[in-house]
Amino acid sequence: MSWKKKDLLDIRSLSVEEIGEVHAAARTFRDVIAREIKKVPALRGKTVVNLFAEPSTRTRISFDLAAKRLSADVVDFEASSSSFRKGETLIDTVRNLEALNAEFIILRHAAAGAAQFIAERLSAHVINAGDGAHEHPTQALLDTFTILQNRGRIAELRVLISGDILFSRVARSNIHALTKLGATVVLCGPATLLPDTFRELGVEISHDFEAELPKADVVYLLRIQHERQRAVYFPSIGEFVALFGLTSERFRLCKPDALIMHPGPINRGVELASELADGRNSVILEQVTNGLAVRMAVLYLLNGGQAPLEH
Amino acid sequence: MSWKKKDLLDIRSLSVEEIGEVHAAARTFRDVIAREIKKVPALRGKTVVNLFAEPSTRTRISFDLAAKRLSADVVDFEASSSSFRKGETLIDTVRNLEALNAEFIILRHAAAGAAQFIAERLSAHVINAGDGAHEHPTQALLDTFTILQNRGRIAELRVLISGDILFSRVARSNIHALTKLGATVVLCGPATLLPDTFRELGVEISHDFEAELPKADVVYLLRIQHERQRAVYFPSIGEFVALFGLTSERFRLCKPDALIMHPGPINRGVELASELADGRNSVILEQVTNGLAVRMAVLYLLNGGQAPLEH
Amino acid sequence: MSWKKKDLLDIRSLSVEEIGEVHAAARTFRDVIAREIKKVPALRGKTVVNLFAEPSTRTRISFDLAAKRLSADVVDFEASSSSFRKGETLIDTVRNLEALNAEFIILRHAAAGAAQFIAERLSAHVINAGDGAHEHPTQALLDTFTILQNRGRIAELRVLISGDILFSRVARSNIHALTKLGATVVLCGPATLLPDTFRELGVEISHDFEAELPKADVVYLLRIQHERQRAVYFPSIGEFVALFGLTSERFRLCKPDALIMHPGPINRGVELASELADGRNSVILEQVTNGLAVRMAVLYLLNGGQAPLEH
Repeated sequence: MSWKKKDLLDIRSLSVEEIGEVHAAARTFRDVIAREIKKVPALRGKTVVNLFAEPSTRTRISFDLAAKRLSADVVDFEASSSSFRKGETLIDTVRNLEALNAEFIILRHAAAGAAQFIAERLSAHVINAGDGAHEHPTQALLDTFTILQNRGRIAELRVLISGDILFSRVARSNIHALTKLGATVVLCGPATLLPDTFRELGVEISHDFEAELPKADVVYLLRIQHERQRAVYFPSIGEFVALFGLTSERFRLCKPDALIMHPGPINRGVELASELADGRNSVILEQVTNGLAVRMAVLYLLNGGQAPLEH
Repeated sequence: MSWKKKDLLDIRSLSVEEIGEVHAAARTFRDVIAREIKKVPALRGKTVVNLFAEPSTRTRISFDLAAKRLSADVVDFEASSSSFRKGETLIDTVRNLEALNAEFIILRHAAAGAAQFIAERLSAHVINAGDGAHEHPTQALLDTFTILQNRGRIAELRVLISGDILFSRVARSNIHALTKLGATVVLCGPATLLPDTFRELGVEISHDFEAELPKADVVYLLRIQHERQRAVYFPSIGEFVALFGLTSERFRLCKPDALIMHPGPINRGVELASELADGRNSVILEQVTNGLAVRMAVLYLLNGGQAPLEH
Repeated sequence: MSWKKKDLLDIRSLSVEEIGEVHAAARTFRDVIAREIKKVPALRGKTVVNLFAEPSTRTRISFDLAAKRLSADVVDFEASSSSFRKGETLIDTVRNLEALNAEFIILRHAAAGAAQFIAERLSAHVINAGDGAHEHPTQALLDTFTILQNRGRIAELRVLISGDILFSRVARSNIHALTKLGATVVLCGPATLLPDTFRELGVEISHDFEAELPKADVVYLLRIQHERQRAVYFPSIGEFVALFGLTSERFRLCKPDALIMHPGPINRGVELASELADGRNSVILEQVTNGLAVRMAVLYLLNGGQAPLEH
């Protein structure tokens, strides 16, 4: 085992070997969570704090269950972002949690860099569960794990990521993970949500969804956000669906074995047709299950990876 | 053991034998929760999700404790009903929970039929913790269990249920349970809240509370709701108390050993006089304790009922 | 062991021996929480309810973790104070919790005396986690424990408590604890927040912060509340800082080894300069860690103190 990092803050700074280590551990935990008794004692007596300063039921529950399956004690700390307007207040809060002997802090925060900011100031392990439009590393680890489970490899696959790229931490983390692992990443979306500067990340850019669909091994659809503050960048929902929605008709352009992926929650009938979300090319629910395994793997590796996996 | 159902959705579709099985298991769990160490490992490693789309602290805590006493991991998911305006969204949410390997989903939802809707689409066990004005089966199971514990039988007892019948899932579930078990059920309340169609459920209907009190073995008072949207059906609180409140004076009309029951929380001085709520005929707190035992019994039976009850 | 009380309601009614017993048990638990596996089975199978009718993330999490480290099942019950406008409703709620076999109820409530009110009516153990402006006993126990850990004694120390004394349950509990243990307590603050009647508690009163600093062994700063309803008693923040803020300049007046204490959360730059909060005289984070040990000690002693401390 070569894992050395105290924290998981982003994909950008991970090596291919480190990503591989998470995937290998996740493979073990996929087996664990398929058992009748899904718990291992790896983190018994350790405390995990779920500190979510932005609402996110799904990710929070996934981390909550991951920690409980490892026998950790979990404390939920849902804070309105308004309590953390100043970095100073956030750091006081996490220093308090560390003084309570919390060994792991899982942070979701609206500010890019928030997880790194606290990680540099704490001896506790910090996991970034999404920081602004920056990164969401466990999402990319579970997404690449899901592709691996279905295709056996990432290298040389062509992955099409479509939608609201500009504001998406999911897109950023996946771009880093997929390019490191040798995939060709194609970003697709309205020009306002996909500036040319993304080319610097080593990806292709397209504004023609239908031209890209036949070439893609994986079609990864981002969730369309309805928030008003983005109105200036965003066409109407109808216009978006007309150009970038994966409809059943458009799906006929895809390779027969193309994987359909989505980070959830889905807007059925917007970025993705309902029948495709539930269809045989969709691995969306596998992503959810793999998210649990990947988050167990990350907690396990950050904890030193030495604890036994059997009771 | 003859329990075969995957889910507990209602009382209407339960057989007398199935009700008896829950009561028998609850009797065992009454003993367990009276011990110094109140836990059994029956659901160790299993995950129970408490998905409450309507606020209900008491029922949620009762299920939470029932699951923890069985050594399950519990995840709380309190959602505002507004997040589930479309059945599609609810089903996506519960499919996600199932993909996280949640074996049990306890659902409270404002829509009648919500629990059945998801149960038909999931392999997870679903427990209906109240769906609109339809049913609240664990409430009726704990109520009939409480009567049994106090009277040794249900058959041939006369049970008077009084109050806001029209909108009450508690009333509906108890009507089914009590009539199946051989009791005579008398419904009592203002005509606007008690339409004649209820007779089809095999019960008697009365609008004269004082005439019914002397004949009742059990007086079951429903909680009066103050919500404005019911104003059109509802007389003033004062008028309701004048006609249907169980006051100390009216209580003198009752049989000396009549049981006073209430699903909680009580509006003291409205449907029930405070001194009667705390008096010797009241079994209201026994109902709460029995609720814990009954919910442990239901989780245990749905889980297959084979796990050991001792550490 | 001489601990006999069912509840921990205040410091005022504790004997010096009882305070010493909590401190002695806390010393043991400081060792426990420094271990790799921080759990002991002392409260296995017991249920602890965290009933917070006023928001307080930090204290709630401290009790939550204390109970979990003792292997108890914890139920969170965050209620808006508005649900408990009538004592009757609060008592019904806690009677329900007791009927669910909750052995411990930790109550924070806006009304002075709320914890005692329910303790007298329940067989469950009640811990007062702050009742209005009355008392907050575990805070004073952890504060005196922190002084002891750093100085080896409390007797004959001079402790300066500064700030919003009038409304502070922290001040009241610390006044009782410190004077019982033989310290000299000096209260300091604007006259509107520090009426002369406090002298009856056996303390000194001063309105000259700078005159007191050179004599103090401990400088205990209370959090300044910004709530509007106190406006009539309170000078402007600027005026308060000018007279009673512990600035770096003023700190030069202090003894070199004076301890700086604060119950948290700190208003950096208001009652305490940021660099002092993080400086070498500050024991503020030690207070947090000791809070966990003291709350474990209290739960352990109330439970009878007989359970083993090893798995």
